[in-house]
Amino acid sequence: MKSENSPKEAPRKVLIIGGGFVGLECARRLANDERFEVSLVDRNNHHLFQPLLYQVATASLAAPDIARSLRQILEKARNVTVLMDEIADLSPGERTATGKSGHVYSYDYLVLATGVRTSFFGNLGWEQHTLGLKTLAEAQMIRRTVLSNLEKAELSTDPDERRRLMTVAIVGGGPTGVELAGAFADLLRRSLHTNFRRIDTTKLRVILIEGSERILGAYDEEQSEYAEKRLSHLGVEVRTSTTVSNVSAQCVHLGNGETIDTAAIVWAAGTEASPLAAKLDVPPADRAGRIAPEPDLSLPGHPEIFAGGDVVSIRDGKGNPVPGVAPAAMQMGRHIAKVLKIDADRYTDEARPAFKYYDKGIMAIIGKNAAVVKSGNLRLRAFPAWLAWLFVHVLFLIGFRNKLSVLLGWAFAYLRDTPDTRIIVNSADNEQEAAAQAGESYPDAA
Amino acid sequence: MKSENSPKEAPRKVLIIGGGFVGLECARRLANDERFEVSLVDRNNHHLFQPLLYQVATASLAAPDIARSLRQILEKARNVTVLMDEIADLSPGERTATGKSGHVYSYDYLVLATGVRTSFFGNLGWEQHTLGLKTLAEAQMIRRTVLSNLEKAELSTDPDERRRLMTVAIVGGGPTGVELAGAFADLLRRSLHTNFRRIDTTKLRVILIEGSERILGAYDEEQSEYAEKRLSHLGVEVRTSTTVSNVSAQCVHLGNGETIDTAAIVWAAGTEASPLAAKLDVPPADRAGRIAPEPDLSLPGHPEIFAGGDVVSIRDGKGNPVPGVAPAAMQMGRHIAKVLKIDADRYTDEARPAFKYYDKGIMAIIGKNAAVVKSGNLRLRAFPAWLAWLFVHVLFLIGFRNKLSVLLGWAFAYLRDTPDTRIIVNSADNEQEAAAQAGESYPDAA
Repeated sequence: MKSENSPKEAPRKVLIIGGGFVGLECARRLANDERFEVSLVDRNNHHLFQPLLYQVATASLAAPDIARSLRQILEKARNVTVLMDEIADLSPGERTATGKSGHVYSYDYLVLATGVRTSFFGNLGWEQHTLGLKTLAEAQMIRRTVLSNLEKAELSTDPDERRRLMTVAIVGGGPTGVELAGAFADLLRRSLHTNFRRIDTTKLRVILIEGSERILGAYDEEQSEYAEKRLSHLGVEVRTSTTVSNVSAQCVHLGNGETIDTAAIVWAAGTEASPLAAKLDVPPADRAGRIAPEPDLSLPGHPEIFAGGDVVSIRDGKGNPVPGVAPAAMQMGRHIAKVLKIDADRYTDEARPAFKYYDKGIMAIIGKNAAVVKSGNLRLRAFPAWLAWLFVHVLFLIGFRNKLSVLLGWAFAYLRDTPDTRIIVNSADNEQEAAAQAGESYPDAA
Repeated sequence: MKSENSPKEAPRKVLIIGGGFVGLECARRLANDERFEVSLVDRNNHHLFQPLLYQVATASLAAPDIARSLRQILEKARNVTVLMDEIADLSPGERTATGKSGHVYSYDYLVLATGVRTSFFGNLGWEQHTLGLKTLAEAQMIRRTVLSNLEKAELSTDPDERRRLMTVAIVGGGPTGVELAGAFADLLRRSLHTNFRRIDTTKLRVILIEGSERILGAYDEEQSEYAEKRLSHLGVEVRTSTTVSNVSAQCVHLGNGETIDTAAIVWAAGTEASPLAAKLDVPPADRAGRIAPEPDLSLPGHPEIFAGGDVVSIRDGKGNPVPGVAPAAMQMGRHIAKVLKIDADRYTDEARPAFKYYDKGIMAIIGKNAAVVKSGNLRLRAFPAWLAWLFVHVLFLIGFRNKLSVLLGWAFAYLRDTPDTRIIVNSADNEQEAAAQAGESYPDAA
């Protein structure tokens, strides 16, 4: 028996932590439903279109092209309040969350959608020598480091130092590592070679290091082979079955005893659940600290707490793990909103619907004009796969005004073979100056 | 008597310091002239289109829209080497310059075009509490500070703190201050009012403080009056004949004893010559440390050293000071290249031509749809002036591929009344993390 909410009933307080695909989609579905009072808390003020983050790192797109103010997106959702804060602690017993700002947020429903962060598998210290790729700031840091290294190489007269500055090591042969390696090979070896007078950028080394037997392990074997061949063609040195035993400031030490001297180490070898997941009353589902929710995406023993996106570990109908891709996250966000609405609709204890993943497939781009696509029984590669990639990503960006600007940027870069966003905004010095002006004082960096 | 350079003569080494309008224009004019071997040294890797910098500060444009890689611009100038370095010292006697990188650059000709930096008229300590607007990093810091303050105000429950976070003080009623005040009033009071749930952004205060009797002192009196009326209409509090006696972390102290509580103080009240000017053998021409060159733009006693742009103080044919605008800088850059070519052409001691400034006028924009233009006997204001401003700035951007992207951004923002680049990329926390990843270690900021 269904019954509408009595108009006198207070709206249910929904606290969504994280403005990624899960959180944003959930908030959108609850928008202007007056049975809910939604707070969306994120430590940034923007939603990030993460699938294109590697393009910011490789100077193909500007940061605002792939990020948009959460307030702006949710401008017309009158029952949604966006707050920029970082949740530091959760008290599931009291149904509260505490922000770094000191604010205490109380909730009737909690949606945890804080995603993952770069993981170093317990190797403390590696973090300070490597560059991750999870946030806009990290993407800009990769760009700044690689471009600054080329500037330093152009100034340097020491051949060893030059070689080191002209080597980029990417650890991890998953989609992120492959996309970065392909884009860097395009940018550094092809686009920039007419820009320098003293160094030969075609001699630049991009090394992709993967511990297992093949790159793109989630794809078919022949797709991995194609990707490897394609990367080699672009000049990327692909090292499979190669483990990393240590990382230091200027060097990657491989399991086979070899060392690679480099001034830029990108770490794309693993992720772990955001630390908030550990503050819940549930044991982690895997070594990465992810949570295993009930089929409806609520937590065991906590029907009022939901989790979705990269922070959870679930399997689809066929028993395969649901991949950490945007469509999966958006589907989870929509599902959580649906369950909340069903909860609000009725007073019976009927079972909530289970989350069902509609697999739209996975795709990875490999430099200019090539990609691999795996969707159901469909397998694409080379130019058709690249076209499919372009189509899907532009489609996804709909709703962003950035779409047009991204398309234009790509069109120019494609035709002219040279992206125009390769400026270095902050040198480390500038950052210190900037920080100093913000009223903070830093000592001189070494 | 003219004579061509002998083919055996070594090319003359030209060292250009600064990749702004002077340096870039000079390098362009010397491009592929094999009598010259040009090194263009800049501490950034990009040329900055400074007239639009305020739009980055007010979230209307993205950083790459107004900056372009110097290497890319000078890609086809085979005799020009671009080097990213900061010149720390000059030895005019030895004809060398030393970079922070440790490199020593020797030259036959030196072109000093390092511009100006923000000046606090000897008030040490004010710098750390205020935000300047000379570099991309500074522009991004202004944007970040103002937008973050609004986020904090939305979180705050203390009315005094909220008021403070919702006050922007701009010191200096010249073109920079006026353009910033107009754009902030547009952005903060109009575009953003539907974005927040707890604060009323139409109550936001933008205060423009000017020490002299009127703003835009370089314009006619009725133009200043118009600008003041227009700013007031946008909601800006214009305080003329108002001096600043002190600046602290949270407060501007005025000469009349009044204090303004604010969490964002932009300092647009003065500039001084870049410190390199003081390393030359010439006495400064004014209190701002600028240099008075000979009519040909070389320095007294140093026919091999030239200076141009904001770092020099010169007068036009009518005895008026040449303004610090882009057309003046470009004309000086071209003039210096012309003198260098004449020098290379002949062996006589004929006098070099004197620099002649062709005054194209000055213009300042005041929020949406309004500007003032002063050019010869022509005076424009309101919408016609705004159209003229738009036309001239788009024309100037020709040569940048960014032109189209800027135009599109403006068109969208104009039609929708809401710019899309208002993302906060780095919180102070993110910056520390990013810096830590670059291998530097900073202690926790206060």
